[in-house]
Amino acid sequence: MGRPRTPLLDRRRIGAAALRLADENGALTIPALARALGVAPSALYHHVSGRDEIISLMREELVLTTGAGQGAHVWSQPWEQALDSWARSYLSAFAAHPGAVPLLATAPLAEPFMHAMYERAAELLLTAGFAEDQVMPLINALENFILGSALDLVAPPVMVSAVARETAPHLSAVLDHTPADRSRATNAFDVGLRALLTGFRDLLRG
Amino acid sequence: MGRPRTPLLDRRRIGAAALRLADENGALTIPALARALGVAPSALYHHVSGRDEIISLMREELVLTTGAGQGAHVWSQPWEQALDSWARSYLSAFAAHPGAVPLLATAPLAEPFMHAMYERAAELLLTAGFAEDQVMPLINALENFILGSALDLVAPPVMVSAVARETAPHLSAVLDHTPADRSRATNAFDVGLRALLTGFRDLLRG
Repeated sequence: MGRPRTPLLDRRRIGAAALRLADENGALTIPALARALGVAPSALYHHVSGRDEIISLMREELVLTTGAGQGAHVWSQPWEQALDSWARSYLSAFAAHPGAVPLLATAPLAEPFMHAMYERAAELLLTAGFAEDQVMPLINALENFILGSALDLVAPPVMVSAVARETAPHLSAVLDHTPADRSRATNAFDVGLRALLTGFRDLLRG
Repeated sequence: MGRPRTPLLDRRRIGAAALRLADENGALTIPALARALGVAPSALYHHVSGRDEIISLMREELVLTTGAGQGAHVWSQPWEQALDSWARSYLSAFAAHPGAVPLLATAPLAEPFMHAMYERAAELLLTAGFAEDQVMPLINALENFILGSALDLVAPPVMVSAVARETAPHLSAVLDHTPADRSRATNAFDVGLRALLTGFRDLLRG
Protein backbone atom coordinates (compact mmCIF):
# COMPACT_ATOMS: atom_id res chain seq x y z
CA MET A 1 0.00 0.00 0.00
CA GLY A 2 2.73 2.50 0.91
CA ARG A 3 1.98 5.89 2.43
CA PRO A 4 -1.05 7.83 1.18
CA ARG A 5 0.00 10.35 -1.47
CA THR A 6 -1.78 13.15 0.44
CA PRO A 7 -1.19 13.20 4.17
CA LEU A 8 -4.47 13.14 6.09
CA LEU A 9 -3.51 16.29 7.88
CA ASP A 10 -1.16 19.04 6.90
CA ARG A 11 -0.81 22.61 8.04
CA ARG A 12 -2.45 24.00 4.90
CA ARG A 13 -5.52 21.78 5.41
CA ILE A 14 -5.72 22.78 9.07
CA GLY A 15 -5.62 26.48 8.18
CA ALA A 16 -8.29 26.10 5.49
CA ALA A 17 -10.61 24.11 7.75
CA ALA A 18 -10.16 26.56 10.64
CA LEU A 19 -10.93 29.51 8.37
CA ARG A 20 -14.08 27.78 7.10
CA LEU A 21 -15.18 26.88 10.62
CA ALA A 22 -14.59 30.37 12.04
CA ASP A 23 -16.36 31.87 9.04
CA GLU A 24 -19.43 29.66 9.57
CA ASN A 25 -19.63 29.80 13.37
CA GLY A 26 -17.97 33.09 14.26
CA ALA A 27 -15.87 31.07 16.68
CA LEU A 28 -13.16 28.43 16.74
CA THR A 29 -12.50 25.66 19.23
CA ILE A 30 -9.93 22.87 18.98
CA PRO A 31 -12.55 20.09 19.49
CA ALA A 32 -14.77 21.55 16.73
CA LEU A 33 -11.79 21.88 14.39
CA ALA A 34 -10.71 18.28 15.07
CA ARG A 35 -14.28 17.11 14.36
CA ALA A 36 -14.38 19.08 11.10
CA LEU A 37 -11.10 17.45 10.04
CA GLY A 38 -12.28 14.00 11.15
CA VAL A 39 -9.37 13.49 13.53
CA ALA A 40 -8.84 13.35 17.29
CA PRO A 41 -7.80 16.64 18.95
CA SER A 42 -4.50 14.97 19.88
CA ALA A 43 -3.72 14.44 16.16
CA LEU A 44 -3.98 18.20 15.63
CA TYR A 45 -1.24 18.75 18.19
CA HIS A 46 1.21 16.79 16.03
CA HIS A 47 1.02 19.69 13.59
CA VAL A 48 0.33 22.81 15.63
CA SER A 49 1.28 23.97 19.09
CA GLY A 50 -2.13 25.46 19.88
CA ARG A 51 -4.77 28.01 19.13
CA ASP A 52 -2.39 30.88 18.28
CA GLU A 53 -0.66 28.80 15.65
CA ILE A 54 -4.00 27.79 14.14
CA ILE A 55 -4.93 31.45 13.81
CA SER A 56 -1.57 32.04 12.08
CA LEU A 57 -2.42 29.23 9.65
CA MET A 58 -5.79 30.87 8.99
CA ARG A 59 -4.03 34.14 8.11
CA GLU A 60 -1.60 32.26 5.90
CA GLU A 61 -4.50 30.56 4.11
CA LEU A 62 -6.25 33.90 3.64
CA VAL A 63 -3.11 35.40 2.15
CA LEU A 64 -2.38 32.37 -0.03
CA THR A 65 -5.89 32.26 -1.47
CA THR A 66 -6.33 36.01 -1.95
CA GLY A 67 -2.81 37.42 -2.21
CA ALA A 68 -4.01 40.18 0.12
CA GLY A 69 -1.45 42.92 0.55
CA GLN A 70 1.55 40.76 -0.24
CA GLY A 71 2.47 41.79 -3.78
CA ALA A 72 5.65 43.81 -4.18
CA HIS A 73 3.80 45.78 -6.89
CA VAL A 74 1.43 47.12 -4.20
CA TRP A 75 4.20 48.74 -2.20
CA SER A 76 6.23 50.09 -5.12
CA GLN A 77 3.51 52.67 -5.84
CA PRO A 78 3.24 56.17 -4.32
CA TRP A 79 1.87 55.87 -0.78
CA GLU A 80 -1.72 56.86 -1.53
CA GLN A 81 -2.09 54.38 -4.39
CA ALA A 82 -0.29 51.72 -2.34
CA LEU A 83 -2.70 52.12 0.60
CA ASP A 84 -5.61 52.16 -1.83
CA SER A 85 -4.53 48.88 -3.53
CA TRP A 86 -3.70 47.29 -0.20
CA ALA A 87 -7.08 48.29 1.29
CA ARG A 88 -8.96 46.84 -1.68
CA SER A 89 -7.15 43.49 -1.63
CA TYR A 90 -7.52 43.30 2.14
CA LEU A 91 -11.26 44.05 1.84
CA SER A 92 -11.81 41.24 -0.69
CA ALA A 93 -9.94 38.79 1.50
CA PHE A 94 -11.98 39.58 4.62
CA ALA A 95 -15.29 39.87 2.78
CA ALA A 96 -14.73 36.28 1.60
CA HIS A 97 -14.63 35.12 5.24
CA PRO A 98 -16.71 37.64 7.23
CA GLY A 99 -17.43 35.27 10.12
CA ALA A 100 -13.70 35.02 10.78
CA VAL A 101 -13.25 38.81 10.95
CA PRO A 102 -13.69 39.19 14.74
CA LEU A 103 -11.27 36.35 15.43
CA LEU A 104 -8.60 37.54 12.98
CA ALA A 105 -9.03 41.15 14.08
CA THR A 106 -8.32 40.39 17.71
CA ALA A 107 -5.47 37.83 17.53
CA PRO A 108 -1.90 39.20 17.78
CA LEU A 109 0.10 39.25 14.53
CA ALA A 110 3.28 37.30 15.14
CA GLU A 111 3.72 35.83 11.64
CA PRO A 112 6.90 36.79 9.75
CA PHE A 113 4.94 37.11 6.47
CA MET A 114 2.62 39.64 8.15
CA HIS A 115 5.61 41.48 9.59
CA ALA A 116 7.10 41.65 6.09
CA MET A 117 3.91 43.35 4.86
CA TYR A 118 3.85 45.85 7.74
CA GLU A 119 7.57 46.52 7.20
CA ARG A 120 6.86 47.58 3.62
CA ALA A 121 3.95 49.74 4.72
CA ALA A 122 6.01 51.36 7.50
CA GLU A 123 8.94 52.07 5.17
CA LEU A 124 6.66 53.62 2.55
CA LEU A 125 4.86 55.87 5.05
CA LEU A 126 8.06 56.99 6.79
CA THR A 127 9.58 57.79 3.40
CA ALA A 128 6.44 59.76 2.50
CA GLY A 129 7.14 61.96 5.52
CA PHE A 130 4.83 60.64 8.24
CA ALA A 131 6.24 60.79 11.77
CA GLU A 132 7.20 57.59 13.55
CA ASP A 133 4.31 57.96 16.00
CA GLN A 134 1.79 58.51 13.21
CA VAL A 135 2.44 55.35 11.19
CA MET A 136 0.88 52.60 13.31
CA PRO A 137 -2.27 54.59 14.27
CA LEU A 138 -2.75 55.36 10.59
CA ILE A 139 -2.35 51.70 9.53
CA ASN A 140 -4.61 50.56 12.40
CA ALA A 141 -7.29 53.08 11.50
CA LEU A 142 -7.26 51.95 7.88
CA GLU A 143 -7.47 48.30 8.95
CA ASN A 144 -10.39 49.03 11.25
CA PHE A 145 -12.24 50.74 8.43
CA ILE A 146 -11.56 47.72 6.17
CA LEU A 147 -12.77 45.20 8.79
CA GLY A 148 -16.01 47.08 9.32
CA SER A 149 -16.48 47.47 5.57
CA ALA A 150 -16.02 43.72 5.07
CA LEU A 151 -18.93 43.11 7.47
CA ASP A 152 -20.98 45.72 5.62
CA LEU A 153 -20.28 43.98 2.28
CA VAL A 154 -22.02 40.84 3.53
CA ALA A 155 -24.90 42.77 5.13
CA PRO A 156 -28.18 42.96 3.20
CA PRO A 157 -28.11 45.44 0.28
CA VAL A 158 -30.92 47.40 1.96
CA MET A 159 -29.83 47.98 5.53
CA VAL A 160 -32.22 50.75 6.56
CA SER A 161 -35.70 49.48 5.78
CA ALA A 162 -39.37 50.21 6.46
CA VAL A 163 -38.79 53.96 6.88
CA ALA A 164 -41.93 56.10 7.28
CA ARG A 165 -41.69 59.09 4.91
CA GLU A 166 -43.89 61.34 7.12
CA THR A 167 -41.76 60.98 10.23
CA ALA A 168 -38.38 60.67 8.48
CA PRO A 169 -38.47 62.87 5.36
CA HIS A 170 -34.72 63.58 5.17
CA LEU A 171 -33.79 59.95 5.68
CA SER A 172 -36.31 58.94 3.01
CA ALA A 173 -34.83 61.46 0.59
CA VAL A 174 -31.27 60.19 1.01
CA LEU A 175 -32.41 56.55 0.83
CA ASP A 176 -34.08 57.38 -2.52
CA HIS A 177 -30.53 58.15 -3.70
CA THR A 178 -28.97 55.02 -2.18
CA PRO A 179 -28.60 51.91 -4.37
CA ALA A 180 -30.49 48.81 -3.23
CA ASP A 181 -27.79 46.36 -4.28
CA ARG A 182 -24.21 45.48 -3.42
CA SER A 183 -23.04 48.87 -4.69
CA ARG A 184 -24.50 50.42 -1.51
CA ALA A 185 -21.63 48.87 0.44
CA THR A 186 -18.95 49.35 -2.24
CA ASN A 187 -19.92 53.05 -2.55
CA ALA A 188 -19.59 53.47 1.19
CA PHE A 189 -16.16 51.81 1.06
CA ASP A 190 -15.03 54.06 -1.80
CA VAL A 191 -16.27 57.23 -0.09
CA GLY A 192 -14.67 56.27 3.22
CA LEU A 193 -11.36 55.18 1.71
CA ARG A 194 -11.06 58.42 -0.26
CA ALA A 195 -11.93 60.44 2.85
CA LEU A 196 -9.36 58.59 4.98
CA LEU A 197 -6.60 59.09 2.41
CA THR A 198 -7.50 62.78 2.10
CA GLY A 199 -7.31 63.08 5.86
CA PHE A 200 -3.95 61.29 5.98
CA ARG A 201 -2.56 63.61 3.30
CA ASP A 202 -3.71 66.51 5.46
CA LEU A 203 -1.60 65.14 8.34
CA LEU A 204 1.51 65.44 6.16
CA ARG A 205 0.84 69.15 5.64
CA GLY A 206 0.00 69.81 9.32
CA MET B 1 -49.78 33.58 45.84
CA GLY B 2 -50.99 35.96 43.09
CA ARG B 3 -48.85 36.81 40.06
CA PRO B 4 -45.09 37.22 40.50
CA ARG B 5 -44.18 40.89 40.77
CA THR B 6 -41.62 40.57 37.95
CA PRO B 7 -42.81 38.66 34.91
CA LEU B 8 -40.55 35.74 34.11
CA LEU B 9 -40.02 37.05 30.63
CA ASP B 10 -40.34 40.52 29.21
CA ARG B 11 -38.98 42.13 26.09
CA ARG B 12 -36.28 44.00 27.95
CA ARG B 13 -34.99 40.77 29.55
CA ILE B 14 -35.03 39.02 26.19
CA GLY B 15 -33.01 41.80 24.56
CA ALA B 16 -30.46 41.85 27.38
CA ALA B 17 -30.02 38.06 27.35
CA ALA B 18 -29.71 37.98 23.55
CA LEU B 19 -27.07 40.71 23.62
CA ARG B 20 -25.10 38.84 26.29
CA LEU B 21 -25.37 35.57 24.37
CA ALA B 22 -24.32 37.06 21.03
CA ASP B 23 -21.48 38.85 22.76
CA GLU B 24 -20.21 35.62 24.34
CA ASN B 25 -20.72 33.26 21.39
CA GLY B 26 -20.56 35.52 18.35
CA ALA B 27 -23.84 33.94 17.33
CA LEU B 28 -27.48 33.77 18.37
CA THR B 29 -29.98 30.94 18.03
CA ILE B 30 -33.51 30.77 19.41
CA PRO B 31 -32.89 27.46 21.27
CA ALA B 32 -29.75 28.85 22.92
CA LEU B 33 -31.56 32.06 23.91
CA ALA B 34 -34.47 30.06 25.39
CA ARG B 35 -31.97 27.95 27.34
CA ALA B 36 -30.20 31.06 28.65
CA LEU B 37 -33.55 32.45 29.82
CA GLY B 38 -34.60 29.12 31.32
CA VAL B 39 -37.77 28.86 29.23
CA ALA B 40 -39.03 26.76 26.34
CA PRO B 41 -38.52 28.23 22.85
CA SER B 42 -42.33 28.38 22.50
CA ALA B 43 -42.48 30.76 25.50
CA LEU B 44 -40.20 33.18 23.64
CA TYR B 45 -42.69 33.36 20.80
CA HIS B 46 -45.32 34.80 23.14
CA HIS B 47 -43.16 37.92 23.28
CA VAL B 48 -41.36 38.17 19.95
CA SER B 49 -42.25 37.21 16.40
CA GLY B 50 -38.80 35.80 15.62
CA ARG B 51 -35.12 36.41 15.13
CA ASP B 52 -35.44 39.86 13.52
CA GLU B 53 -37.43 41.17 16.45
CA ILE B 54 -34.89 39.75 18.89
CA ILE B 55 -32.13 41.63 17.09
CA SER B 56 -34.25 44.80 17.36
CA LEU B 57 -34.52 44.20 21.11
CA MET B 58 -30.73 43.81 21.28
CA ARG B 59 -30.31 47.19 19.57
CA GLU B 60 -32.86 48.72 21.93
CA GLU B 61 -30.98 47.30 24.92
CA LEU B 62 -27.69 48.65 23.56
CA VAL B 63 -29.21 52.10 23.14
CA LEU B 64 -30.96 52.04 26.53
CA THR B 65 -27.81 51.03 28.39
CA THR B 66 -25.39 53.32 26.54
CA GLY B 67 -27.53 56.13 25.14
CA ALA B 68 -25.55 55.71 21.91
CA GLY B 69 -26.32 58.39 19.37
CA GLN B 70 -29.78 59.16 20.69
CA GLY B 71 -29.29 62.39 22.58
CA ALA B 72 -30.80 65.53 21.03
CA HIS B 73 -27.67 67.39 22.22
CA VAL B 74 -25.57 65.29 19.83
CA TRP B 75 -27.42 66.46 16.75
CA SER B 76 -27.81 70.10 17.74
CA GLN B 77 -24.06 70.67 17.25
CA PRO B 78 -22.34 71.66 13.98
CA TRP B 79 -22.08 68.58 11.75
CA GLU B 80 -18.42 67.75 12.44
CA GLN B 81 -18.84 67.87 16.22
CA ALA B 82 -22.12 65.98 15.93
CA LEU B 83 -20.52 63.14 13.93
CA ASP B 84 -17.57 63.15 16.35
CA SER B 85 -19.85 62.81 19.43
CA TRP B 86 -22.04 60.25 17.72
CA ALA B 87 -19.01 58.16 16.66
CA ARG B 88 -17.61 58.16 20.20
CA SER B 89 -20.86 57.10 21.85
CA TYR B 90 -21.42 54.47 19.17
CA LEU B 91 -17.87 53.15 19.71
CA SER B 92 -18.38 52.77 23.47
CA ALA B 93 -21.65 50.94 22.92
CA PHE B 94 -20.18 48.42 20.49
CA ALA B 95 -16.91 48.00 22.37
CA ALA B 96 -19.02 46.90 25.37
CA HIS B 97 -20.44 44.03 23.29
CA PRO B 98 -17.81 43.20 20.64
CA GLY B 99 -19.03 39.66 20.05
CA ALA B 100 -22.37 41.03 18.94
CA VAL B 101 -20.81 43.41 16.39
CA PRO B 102 -21.01 41.06 13.37
CA LEU B 103 -24.66 40.22 14.10
CA LEU B 104 -25.75 43.82 14.70
CA ALA B 105 -23.73 45.05 11.73
CA THR B 106 -25.44 42.73 9.28
CA ALA B 107 -29.10 42.81 10.42
CA PRO B 108 -31.40 45.33 8.68
CA LEU B 109 -32.37 48.39 10.71
CA ALA B 110 -36.15 48.53 10.80
CA GLU B 111 -36.58 50.05 14.28
CA PRO B 112 -38.33 53.45 14.50
CA PHE B 113 -35.86 54.63 17.18
CA MET B 114 -32.96 53.88 14.82
CA HIS B 115 -34.77 55.64 11.98
CA ALA B 116 -35.22 58.68 14.24
CA MET B 117 -31.46 58.77 14.78
CA TYR B 118 -30.67 58.46 11.06
CA GLU B 119 -33.30 61.11 10.30
CA ARG B 120 -31.43 63.57 12.52
CA ALA B 121 -28.09 62.66 10.93
CA ALA B 122 -29.53 62.97 7.40
CA GLU B 123 -31.11 66.36 8.14
CA LEU B 124 -27.89 67.68 9.63
CA LEU B 125 -25.74 66.54 6.70
CA LEU B 126 -28.16 67.79 4.04
CA THR B 127 -28.30 71.15 5.82
CA ALA B 128 -24.49 71.23 5.93
CA GLY B 129 -24.53 71.01 2.13
CA PHE B 130 -23.85 67.36 1.35
CA ALA B 131 -25.67 66.01 -1.71
CA GLU B 132 -28.51 63.52 -1.29
CA ASP B 133 -26.41 60.72 -2.79
CA GLN B 134 -23.46 61.47 -0.49
CA VAL B 135 -25.24 61.18 2.85
CA MET B 136 -25.80 57.44 3.24
CA PRO B 137 -22.35 56.38 1.93
CA LEU B 138 -20.81 58.85 4.34
CA ILE B 139 -22.84 57.56 7.33
CA ASN B 140 -22.14 53.94 6.31
CA ALA B 141 -18.40 54.58 5.97
CA LEU B 142 -18.28 56.17 9.42
CA GLU B 143 -20.24 53.25 10.91
CA ASN B 144 -17.89 50.73 9.30
CA PHE B 145 -14.90 52.52 10.78
CA ILE B 146 -16.58 52.49 14.21
CA LEU B 147 -17.44 48.77 14.01
CA GLY B 148 -13.87 47.84 13.10
CA SER B 149 -12.52 50.15 15.81
CA ALA B 150 -14.76 48.48 18.41
CA LEU B 151 -13.15 45.13 17.54
CA ASP B 152 -9.71 46.75 17.76
CA LEU B 153 -10.52 48.14 21.23
CA VAL B 154 -10.98 44.60 22.56
CA ALA B 155 -7.90 43.25 20.75
CA PRO B 156 -4.69 42.86 22.76
CA PRO B 157 -2.86 46.16 23.42
CA VAL B 158 0.15 44.82 21.52
CA MET B 159 -1.19 43.53 18.20
CA VAL B 160 2.05 43.28 16.20
CA SER B 161 4.41 41.19 18.28
CA ALA B 162 7.72 39.29 18.06
CA VAL B 163 9.09 41.53 15.32
CA ALA B 164 12.73 40.93 14.34
CA ARG B 165 14.57 44.27 14.26
CA GLU B 166 17.13 43.08 11.64
CA THR B 167 14.54 42.08 9.05
CA ALA B 168 11.93 44.73 9.90
CA PRO B 169 13.78 47.91 10.94
CA HIS B 170 11.08 50.40 9.88
CA LEU B 171 8.31 48.42 11.54
CA SER B 172 10.41 48.16 14.70
CA ALA B 173 10.99 51.92 14.68
CA VAL B 174 7.31 52.76 14.42
CA LEU B 175 6.39 50.13 17.03
CA ASP B 176 8.87 51.82 19.40
CA HIS B 177 6.56 54.86 19.13
CA THR B 178 3.33 52.88 19.59
CA PRO B 179 1.85 52.59 23.08
CA ALA B 180 1.56 49.06 24.51
CA ASP B 181 -1.74 49.68 26.27
CA ARG B 182 -5.33 50.49 25.44
CA SER B 183 -4.28 53.89 24.08
CA ARG B 184 -2.91 52.07 21.00
CA ALA B 185 -6.48 51.45 19.87
CA THR B 186 -7.92 54.77 21.08
CA ASN B 187 -5.11 56.64 19.23
CA ALA B 188 -5.93 54.76 16.05
CA PHE B 189 -9.61 55.64 16.49
CA ASP B 190 -8.79 59.33 17.06
CA VAL B 191 -6.46 59.50 14.04
CA GLY B 192 -8.96 57.71 11.79
CA LEU B 193 -11.96 59.73 12.95
CA ARG B 194 -10.13 63.00 12.39
CA ALA B 195 -8.99 61.84 8.95
CA LEU B 196 -12.50 60.77 7.94
CA LEU B 197 -14.02 64.10 9.05
CA THR B 198 -11.28 65.98 7.19
CA GLY B 199 -12.05 63.93 4.09
CA PHE B 200 -15.79 64.56 4.43
CA ARG B 201 -15.19 68.31 4.74
CA ASP B 202 -13.15 68.11 1.57
CA LEU B 203 -16.20 66.62 -0.23
CA LEU B 204 -18.19 69.75 0.62
CA ARG B 205 -15.61 71.92 -1.14
CA GLY B 206 -15.28 69.58 -4.15
